[in-house]
Amino acid sequence: MQPDLLNSAQIAHTSHLIRTCSPLVHCMTNEVVQTFTANVLLALGASPAMVIDAAEASQFSAIADALLINVGTLTQDRAVAMQAAVESANAHHKPWTLDPVAVGALSLRSDFCHQLLALQPAAIRGNASEILALAGMSKGGRGVDTTDTAADALPAAQALARQISTIVAVTGEVDYVTDGRRTVMVTGGDSLMTRVVGTGCALSAVVAASCALPGDRLDNVAAACGLMKQAGAVASANGAGPGRFVAAFLDALYVEEKA
Amino acid sequence: MQPDLLNSAQIAHTSHLIRTCSPLVHCMTNEVVQTFTANVLLALGASPAMVIDAAEASQFSAIADALLINVGTLTQDRAVAMQAAVESANAHHKPWTLDPVAVGALSLRSDFCHQLLALQPAAIRGNASEILALAGMSKGGRGVDTTDTAADALPAAQALARQISTIVAVTGEVDYVTDGRRTVMVTGGDSLMTRVVGTGCALSAVVAASCALPGDRLDNVAAACGLMKQAGAVASANGAGPGRFVAAFLDALYVEEKA
Amino acid sequence: MQPDLLNSAQIAHTSHLIRTCSPLVHCMTNEVVQTFTANVLLALGASPAMVIDAAEASQFSAIADALLINVGTLTQDRAVAMQAAVESANAHHKPWTLDPVAVGALSLRSDFCHQLLALQPAAIRGNASEILALAGMSKGGRGVDTTDTAADALPAAQALARQISTIVAVTGEVDYVTDGRRTVMVTGGDSLMTRVVGTGCALSAVVAASCALPGDRLDNVAAACGLMKQAGAVASANGAGPGRFVAAFLDALYVEEKA
Repeated sequence: MQPDLLNSAQIAHTSHLIRTCSPLVHCMTNEVVQTFTANVLLALGASPAMVIDAAEASQFSAIADALLINVGTLTQDRAVAMQAAVESANAHHKPWTLDPVAVGALSLRSDFCHQLLALQPAAIRGNASEILALAGMSKGGRGVDTTDTAADALPAAQALARQISTIVAVTGEVDYVTDGRRTVMVTGGDSLMTRVVGTGCALSAVVAASCALPGDRLDNVAAACGLMKQAGAVASANGAGPGRFVAAFLDALYVEEKA
Repeated sequence: MQPDLLNSAQIAHTSHLIRTCSPLVHCMTNEVVQTFTANVLLALGASPAMVIDAAEASQFSAIADALLINVGTLTQDRAVAMQAAVESANAHHKPWTLDPVAVGALSLRSDFCHQLLALQPAAIRGNASEILALAGMSKGGRGVDTTDTAADALPAAQALARQISTIVAVTGEVDYVTDGRRTVMVTGGDSLMTRVVGTGCALSAVVAASCALPGDRLDNVAAACGLMKQAGAVASANGAGPGRFVAAFLDALYVEEKA
Repeated sequence: MQPDLLNSAQIAHTSHLIRTCSPLVHCMTNEVVQTFTANVLLALGASPAMVIDAAEASQFSAIADALLINVGTLTQDRAVAMQAAVESANAHHKPWTLDPVAVGALSLRSDFCHQLLALQPAAIRGNASEILALAGMSKGGRGVDTTDTAADALPAAQALARQISTIVAVTGEVDYVTDGRRTVMVTGGDSLMTRVVGTGCALSAVVAASCALPGDRLDNVAAACGLMKQAGAVASANGAGPGRFVAAFLDALYVEEKA
């Protein structure tokens, strides 16, 4: 079955919803990307908050509109806090999103991510290697890099989505967002997005935010991917390198916000 | 009693003092804002250092000129280390500043912040919800956002300042800095300051730095607020979005520094 | 014996090697500089990854091409994980680099760094105070600041390099890179590099990357220092302050990369 192509009206619609609903996103993410993640959410009009202690994380997931779990710099303490937050989110019917950074190659996060799959994520966002590893179809890459294209991992993404009734976004040069039945393809972006840290992780935070929006979740998650690719294309158009790209990228998300 | 309005000569004076005294500021702050906080202090000519292990933090607070405690990503381990640092700062007559991020809604930080109030902070910097919660006059917001204006929290700030003999800066669109008797009002700034993460947290670090300066502490803390608002206004004048704003904001602080 | 002066052909050669070999650098570094460190490595064409749990860090050091240990925000847990990673790196013949941030003044990191010296670092990168403290010739500064010039610490650097058979880069306004017999001097750079956080820490990550390259290690490490000084000079040429400098610095590293 052919994937649908994301249309730009959906991007504008979801962007409007983020801005007007301003979801409070509880981000339990890795140490490297916290600032950029917060700034991406703020640029879009969402409200980020990072709360990491197990007791507080559990309290906060009940209050927030959405939860992001990113295992990039996982420790055993963080895993305990993340699990408490996920359980609280579920108890309070708040959607949570998993970013399984570098799953497959490393044991703590691999065990933890597989364990989390039983706790009903609303969405999963990863690169091809990560989705293949999560679906049990590969051993993962050496880290956050991927040698597979998103298209290679689409069957794994679809199988995983059906298996645990979630939405899987497998992202790369082209993104695919699927619930296992319908698949939306998202094109665009720019290679500079891979030369600055955190674009993938921040996308996962936007996916988390979009899971809290009204409307079709698959469409909103696909639009989250589209929003980021669109900003990447705008930001790279000025011809600068990765340093100025970061600033221009946030500005592009914000221009979207004012539009 | 009418608040005084901060005058720009005081801003220039305090800015000059920061640059010439270059206080070494021990920042125990949240994971999200550490880089920006360090860059703000460096741009102003102060010297930041982040030391977080309990034993080292205790040693370092004795050496540093000022200490900042920001509970944004508090954990139990960090609370232990922070308390050790505060006790050491007090033993060595170094001023310490509290930023009670999101106090009220979350139990670990709320208990911890109330406990710290007994340890004589030189200054407290928070938004209206945080100051209201700290003064026992509300339950706080959902996170770092505030639905009250700083003016709403001014009576709470004044009561808190008198009660524990400290200076309280309650900040927002307008800032109020008070010792419970005299109050200074600080206007200016730009709404983009709320669309990038860390402007409030970095302000708390500048407040911590200004507590180490000679002269009137209330005036220096108010000037710290004024310095940041002034840089925000300069940085927003170029019409860019939040990405380029961050860079322009640091440049504006640095231009101040060279003036 | 007179130090050699680094020539720009070596900078271009090492830059080319980083880009073509794209070493995967396992960065166990401090919380303040993780984003900037990752972005510096990405701009140069290397591949950063931050993995911090003890079990995972040990696994990952076996996979990565190089390991960086930076003790800037050391905790006891992190020290355990770092030691496990170093031992794994050694077992798998992967070079590891030490950045002994603020060694001397603080006990946990001082004990830990001295203990790590027995585990054969491929390179050590520090400022004058840090190298003097590590060589047992001073008590270190108050933090990351240094009151000594790199030239003052050159004898200590040479002695330390000979004693444990490593390469020591002592950096400042002028850098010296030595194996205890041959010494290369690196000039250039700009004072703005000291007004933004992380340039020294990110340099250590580039040193770590260059230890994984083919060719003469001393020359590659010196070229790593030269690459950063060259980018600093380019970035400061636009006359902006520290905010825009950071972006221009990454762009300059990236321009190098495309050259």
